[in-house]
Amino acid sequence: MELDRALYTTRAMRRVRPDPIPDAEVAGILDAAVRAPSGGNSQNWRFLTVTDVNVRSRLAPVYREAFAILQETVYKDAWARAQDIGDRSALAVQRSSAWLAENFEQVPLWLFAYSRNDPSGASIYPAVWSAMLAARGKGIGSCLTTILGFFRSEETAAILEVPLDKGWTLNASVSFGYPLGNWGVAPRKPVEEVTFADRWGNPVSWRSHPPSFD
Amino acid sequence: MELDRALYTTRAMRRVRPDPIPDAEVAGILDAAVRAPSGGNSQNWRFLTVTDVNVRSRLAPVYREAFAILQETVYKDAWARAQDIGDRSALAVQRSSAWLAENFEQVPLWLFAYSRNDPSGASIYPAVWSAMLAARGKGIGSCLTTILGFFRSEETAAILEVPLDKGWTLNASVSFGYPLGNWGVAPRKPVEEVTFADRWGNPVSWRSHPPSFD
Repeated sequence: MELDRALYTTRAMRRVRPDPIPDAEVAGILDAAVRAPSGGNSQNWRFLTVTDVNVRSRLAPVYREAFAILQETVYKDAWARAQDIGDRSALAVQRSSAWLAENFEQVPLWLFAYSRNDPSGASIYPAVWSAMLAARGKGIGSCLTTILGFFRSEETAAILEVPLDKGWTLNASVSFGYPLGNWGVAPRKPVEEVTFADRWGNPVSWRSHPPSFD
Repeated sequence: MELDRALYTTRAMRRVRPDPIPDAEVAGILDAAVRAPSGGNSQNWRFLTVTDVNVRSRLAPVYREAFAILQETVYKDAWARAQDIGDRSALAVQRSSAWLAENFEQVPLWLFAYSRNDPSGASIYPAVWSAMLAARGKGIGSCLTTILGFFRSEETAAILEVPLDKGWTLNASVSFGYPLGNWGVAPRKPVEEVTFADRWGNPVSWRSHPPSFD
């Protein structure tokens, strides 16, 4: 897989088939993850790969509780507004997020990323994103979720037997599976609208020419 | 550039030449960055590309102050210990970090990544890491630093004219330049030591077989 294709087409892929991911692919995904840089090369991370259906089944209702809280709090206004104005893109995100919650235990691999002494997240998220890019290279879709770190983190840790008293924090729960949908470049605001040159508000002098992928 | 090569060999590349990075490459780096997923596809980010030598010269002493604080606080014990036990890897990180601080204004491109409503960092760091990977594909080295977010963030924002009162937070200051050193796979703990299967402490059944790059 070519780097640019991976960078442009690794979009959130929530709807996946239940087919298991071979161990060799899981190994490759995790081995790529740990190559990412971390502050002072501290590598203060632990990854949990959850494939056991019993563990997934115990986590699923906890995830659904956390997702319900998210819907009623953080995303309440945004999703109500998306409904009101008929924002199809936002509604599609909402529907596929709900699919992921409803089908939690059908997702063949969940990756839980824990870190400590990483207050900004600058050390753990590059590794997580590398895992997702490496998966894309193997035709495996993924979606980064953070809700179990914000809600129900203690219940999650209890199921996974994580020693929270040692300072570990859950940064991401990432779903992995062979996609039901198609790969493609996700819509984004033009880069020139979110980038400034040398000082805030000063437009960049260049224009981007994104590659196209068939 | 092949995806795996980028994922394995994009290590912190602090020592770079002062040669400017062409606008087309800067555009490509940023355009790749904004393709990364963000929570609810919110894209709550702004990127500042600093190439103006006057702006770099004003930021340099601020960065050096922040770096001095880091050395005297967060890294004090770790670096003293590295000296005591002769940890060559840690001492090399220390030396190249000091090089970056001393040569701040010689680095041809600094990328400042700001976000808001992203308390975990899960939305901004994939974009930042994509920028670094895209740069690697163009033969451009980079290093993610967070210290200006922790120390001297107000002075930095004042120079860059960032409206902090609008809720923007500095997540990363990333150096970019053509490398003085060589690309290579950075040493890491074996992935099997930092990954568990289904519950904390339970070893994975697979062994990784990292690709080799010449």
